[in-house]
Amino acid sequence: MTDDTVRPGLEGVTVAETRLSRVDGEAGELLVGGYPVETLAGNASFEEAVYLLFEDRLPTGRELDRFRSELAAHRTLDEEVHGVVRRAAADGDPAMDALRMGVAAASLGIDAEDPRTAATRVVAVAPTIVAAYWRYRQDEAPIEPDPDLSHAANYLYMLTGERPSDAAVRGLETYLATVIDHGLNASTFTARTVVSTESDLVSAGTAAIGTLKGPLHGGAPGPVLDMLQSVHESGDPEGFVRDRLDAGERLMGFGHRVYRVRDPRAAVLSSAAERFYAGTDEDGFYETVEQFESVALDALAEHKPDRRLATNVEFYTAALLHGVGIPGTCSRRRSPSAGRAAGWPTVWSNSTTTD
Amino acid sequence: MTDDTVRPGLEGVTVAETRLSRVDGEAGELLVGGYPVETLAGNASFEEAVYLLFEDRLPTGRELDRFRSELAAHRTLDEEVHGVVRRAAADGDPAMDALRMGVAAASLGIDAEDPRTAATRVVAVAPTIVAAYWRYRQDEAPIEPDPDLSHAANYLYMLTGERPSDAAVRGLETYLATVIDHGLNASTFTARTVVSTESDLVSAGTAAIGTLKGPLHGGAPGPVLDMLQSVHESGDPEGFVRDRLDAGERLMGFGHRVYRVRDPRAAVLSSAAERFYAGTDEDGFYETVEQFESVALDALAEHKPDRRLATNVEFYTAALLHGVGIPGTCSRRRSPSAGRAAGWPTVWSNSTTTD
Repeated sequence: MTDDTVRPGLEGVTVAETRLSRVDGEAGELLVGGYPVETLAGNASFEEAVYLLFEDRLPTGRELDRFRSELAAHRTLDEEVHGVVRRAAADGDPAMDALRMGVAAASLGIDAEDPRTAATRVVAVAPTIVAAYWRYRQDEAPIEPDPDLSHAANYLYMLTGERPSDAAVRGLETYLATVIDHGLNASTFTARTVVSTESDLVSAGTAAIGTLKGPLHGGAPGPVLDMLQSVHESGDPEGFVRDRLDAGERLMGFGHRVYRVRDPRAAVLSSAAERFYAGTDEDGFYETVEQFESVALDALAEHKPDRRLATNVEFYTAALLHGVGIPGTCSRRRSPSAGRAAGWPTVWSNSTTTD
Repeated sequence: MTDDTVRPGLEGVTVAETRLSRVDGEAGELLVGGYPVETLAGNASFEEAVYLLFEDRLPTGRELDRFRSELAAHRTLDEEVHGVVRRAAADGDPAMDALRMGVAAASLGIDAEDPRTAATRVVAVAPTIVAAYWRYRQDEAPIEPDPDLSHAANYLYMLTGERPSDAAVRGLETYLATVIDHGLNASTFTARTVVSTESDLVSAGTAAIGTLKGPLHGGAPGPVLDMLQSVHESGDPEGFVRDRLDAGERLMGFGHRVYRVRDPRAAVLSSAAERFYAGTDEDGFYETVEQFESVALDALAEHKPDRRLATNVEFYTAALLHGVGIPGTCSRRRSPSAGRAAGWPTVWSNSTTTD
């Protein structure tokens, strides 16, 4: 069955079936591990959501305890891996490069040919790599993971050295469960191509991270946050939106290749952000976010009535993670060389913490 | 244009066009950079072949000199990368894991967002990583690259510390040019998926190496060499082939997903091996190889007349690289833990050098 039609980007080609998630772009629905994303993200801890994808069912209490310990036991970064991550940070390389290097070396000290062990290790060690990178960038010593904290709480703890608030942990967990799987996006597709040769899951995870680095895939929240902060400072969302659309530019944070209605993940993250900022939105940042979305949607509907452009997941990711205290991929405290900076996928600054 | 038919492995789906190589599986023809593989592999140095793929034409003498220097300047491994490679070797991890870790960190010290720089770096540094890993495995200090040697000569030099013979360099260059590109195989496909998100070429190269690691893709030469050595020791190719086929087992080194006639790369490597072993086949190893191929092809034609199973590229890769002095992915001098060893894609031993 050879068909000489070139299918660029594999548009319209069904390459595999997956039980992990089901995306219905027309209806704006997303099932993750069989659950509507709204249900899962609001209720499951990160550990529960990962277990669901690993085992195709939610864990019992005992299974969850065991899985938590298993993940926590795999968090520590080997000294040799600290070496490359420290160097990447010292050179001002992008966080995604440090993450790629760290995950590529995640097979050290484990049996990486065992899929379950390799998958657990990759999931567990990623926040340690990112947090270590971030601390090195700030000229601060990395903070050892605390096995008594949950995955999400420990991540925030390793960034700041302070115990995060419950609200911040809940916000981060909602985000993680919301974006934990999304059909055959480019990074998942890459990972599946890697294992199709019977390679291992550390290789697959590394490849996926290299793919996610690309600005067309994972790089959007950073520039969205830059935009929201600039609008927040100017206080003039109407003017900003009008200027962009008049100049024929796209508005970041709106539109999606698959979803023709509002991205269901954006709805979940919007509620999570609303919940998170309730009572803590002292400088009115979240108020700006909501106002901006409303202005932008009206303007887009008027300018491009045939496109049905809706708020996408990056929009509320930027708003929520900013509040929760996740820093961007690089800090403005250092000024990287222009040559390097030009190619960086996301450049945003956030020194706010939730404590 | 959505088609609900699942296309597992993308069988029969044309996903892209490439000028790098053209595979005609029915005719048994391969063009690399516009040249028949037989022409290119017999005449081009590795540097010329890489230049051809980078620039879509062969270099002038001056361009070649410049490109040689450029590659040579990118060979050195950073101390942090030595750290992870040394650790991988000390743990007895597969060579492909060390290569993945090393290439993942190849962005250190360069402008990895520049595609030409990143591609040059990945090509240049790969032999340094593999040779360092190999030396660490032997409990020997790695050998610094020599910028005055060609890519292939320097690789052999870094493995042994001795200047390789011209014949060995020629054999290795022929191999490298022969396998330098082969349409959309799994590793190339992965690399292209990575850059489709506008990620960088270090990420793409890392992903490709993780894919190549899989035994269904790049892992075959090791077991083929094991087989050839065992047949060479027994002196009974007929018995070996009969036992395997009677047991319903596949014969490694024969058959290919795409080529229905003899793989043209196998022909090139067969000639290269013949040339290499001429006059140096003291223990009759190459004689065994030829005898085995002939016996196996006869037996396969008889057992599976409808399959048209031909000698594949791994068969002569194993024979040629063995002669040239490229060691396997791990030495039998150390005995790795059984758990790890079980998953290793290629395990072969070769302490022969060509000097």
